[in-house]
Amino acid sequence: MSSAPAPAPLSYEQAGVQYDLIDPLKVAAQRAAAATAHHLRAHGMTEVAASRGESAYVVDAGPFHVASIVECLGSKALVADEMQRLVGRSFYAAIAQDTIAMAVNDLVTVGATPLVVQAYWAAGGSDWFADAERARELVAGWQAACERCGVAWGGGETPALAGIVEAGRVDLAAACTGIVRPKSRLSLGAALGAGDAIVLLASSGIHANGLTLARKLAERLPQGYLTEVAPGLGYGEALLAPTLLYPPVTEALAAAGVPVHYAANITGHGWRKLLRHPRAFTYRIDTVPPVPPVLGFIAREAGHDAAEAYGTLNMGAGFALFVPGHEGERCAAVAREAGVAAWVAGRVEAGPKRLVIEPLGVVYEGDALALR
Amino acid sequence: MSSAPAPAPLSYEQAGVQYDLIDPLKVAAQRAAAATAHHLRAHGMTEVAASRGESAYVVDAGPFHVASIVECLGSKALVADEMQRLVGRSFYAAIAQDTIAMAVNDLVTVGATPLVVQAYWAAGGSDWFADAERARELVAGWQAACERCGVAWGGGETPALAGIVEAGRVDLAAACTGIVRPKSRLSLGAALGAGDAIVLLASSGIHANGLTLARKLAERLPQGYLTEVAPGLGYGEALLAPTLLYPPVTEALAAAGVPVHYAANITGHGWRKLLRHPRAFTYRIDTVPPVPPVLGFIAREAGHDAAEAYGTLNMGAGFALFVPGHEGERCAAVAREAGVAAWVAGRVEAGPKRLVIEPLGVVYEGDALALR
Repeated sequence: MSSAPAPAPLSYEQAGVQYDLIDPLKVAAQRAAAATAHHLRAHGMTEVAASRGESAYVVDAGPFHVASIVECLGSKALVADEMQRLVGRSFYAAIAQDTIAMAVNDLVTVGATPLVVQAYWAAGGSDWFADAERARELVAGWQAACERCGVAWGGGETPALAGIVEAGRVDLAAACTGIVRPKSRLSLGAALGAGDAIVLLASSGIHANGLTLARKLAERLPQGYLTEVAPGLGYGEALLAPTLLYPPVTEALAAAGVPVHYAANITGHGWRKLLRHPRAFTYRIDTVPPVPPVLGFIAREAGHDAAEAYGTLNMGAGFALFVPGHEGERCAAVAREAGVAAWVAGRVEAGPKRLVIEPLGVVYEGDALALR
Repeated sequence: MSSAPAPAPLSYEQAGVQYDLIDPLKVAAQRAAAATAHHLRAHGMTEVAASRGESAYVVDAGPFHVASIVECLGSKALVADEMQRLVGRSFYAAIAQDTIAMAVNDLVTVGATPLVVQAYWAAGGSDWFADAERARELVAGWQAACERCGVAWGGGETPALAGIVEAGRVDLAAACTGIVRPKSRLSLGAALGAGDAIVLLASSGIHANGLTLARKLAERLPQGYLTEVAPGLGYGEALLAPTLLYPPVTEALAAAGVPVHYAANITGHGWRKLLRHPRAFTYRIDTVPPVPPVLGFIAREAGHDAAEAYGTLNMGAGFALFVPGHEGERCAAVAREAGVAAWVAGRVEAGPKRLVIEPLGVVYEGDALALR
């Protein structure tokens, strides 16, 4: 037990991202975007309306659905840069995987098989690309993540954006296109119902959400990113554990014939993402996965109680699958077989929109997540 | 005739983008990307190999091909920002169209119908999104460009990336997914041959390539962006004429049954893009479109001769279509009907890889463009 004084609490909003400033534009953009859907009819296609506001956009292309998405890494590159300065080696293979994970893990929530990834690497100047080791790591990590997900790396864009991207920095993003085939794999929640099992897939750590908070914390640690979060494991290195890739799990589930009613990628807003589906259900959790050391460390150092920690960070669960109740154990077994730890963690019940994490005594009401 | 001393010449490389620093990473990335294509087989699909190194990546999805791409606006946002400071109104509707044009105009070169656009708007901080007029313009311009192209705006990403994107700036990009249907619309050059007509489509001005050079020039003009390039037309405003959208033309050509053998989006490297196809042909131009005033102005002020100007900027031709010789006039007529000025500007001949612009006495040899 530490005798040091308790650190001042640090909320995610205090750390610097102010959603209230971004949200009016997001809402306007969502409305304008929805108004364009009718154009698909001229091509003999229609939008899958239930995908609006979900993690990927889905178009009914006739023989199958086409899904697409663009996602960015966010500020995790700043941690990689600082760690390279501190320990003298590049972590860009890891954050390459993170970037791809941001896109493919969202894409698979709708039931899609990711087919093609496009790279978007916008640097603060031409000279950014001249660091040969970092460039090699970025390319190797990107390729390895594509291989692991069974996607083709289609190409991409490597602009030098001096004056827009800061000197010495890079803005990493990925676009992904996939298909939902057969169409019955669509997992937008139409079949979600009371009695469904909630299967949680392990995370490897912070993944790529909550990094603004994590970076703020590093600033007030005397040893910064070199602080130990577990014996022999430094904070910066732990933060840079690459995001797990879930497409091998969702593809294995399809191959095994386990139907997925709904899926949620647990990113920003932590476990509140379990409340993502618009319909009203009570989600009751009876089993909580082990917490990766780095996430326990952040929660302690930021002074978060369980409700704030699980409402901000993934706390060991990177992805949620909602499957028929009798398929829960098989779903978890297939996930483990595909290399990802998994737990039948709870169930969907009739009732008001609410997430109850029983082992922690934490309850989030339906209004705790407002994404649309 | 001006009595002012001739300005010092300014090349594109002097203006700040050093391709020799970026190219090693690009080559490594292209090789690594190509090595991932075999994964498509596990999904019963194959890559359309001829699309590697072309403007969009194409996958044979069985009943049709799926094409995808990500493209960024580049530094044109800096011109919009400066003009907003100078004249007090937002130009973000215009650069929203530019951003979409960068993606869809590339996508249609392969014969694809663009279906879905995803927005990528990465700002230097949450507060960027709080400028209500600019946000409204960005959303409205994005929507209008989607409408004009008949695509659905699927969604997107609006991250606040303080520390990566500069404060007060935004990194705009677009991802686009489309289909090639019927597959015979694929225009990767397999049918390109001697006797084909070269049809050039008008540009509206600089579009979104060459802006680094254009911004450098502004710095040495006494009145900067307010310098007149034609009576009543300021330099900054002329630069911000939005990029023309070519999907309405390519869709109209498909509807009219005009076969397209190959297409090139004339962006960076100017008319050297006409040399894009890997096979050896001589491209002979006998008709040169009128030069938009802003491009003539840039060429003069930068001290470019015709070879440097046409090898850097689009000089009035934003897109090139290669069609059977007897279809040239009909192709141009269909384009005009779709709202874009067009010229049957020349022809493809057997011979060494070379572009000959006869009215200007300019010749680019095949090694003038090295994109792969």
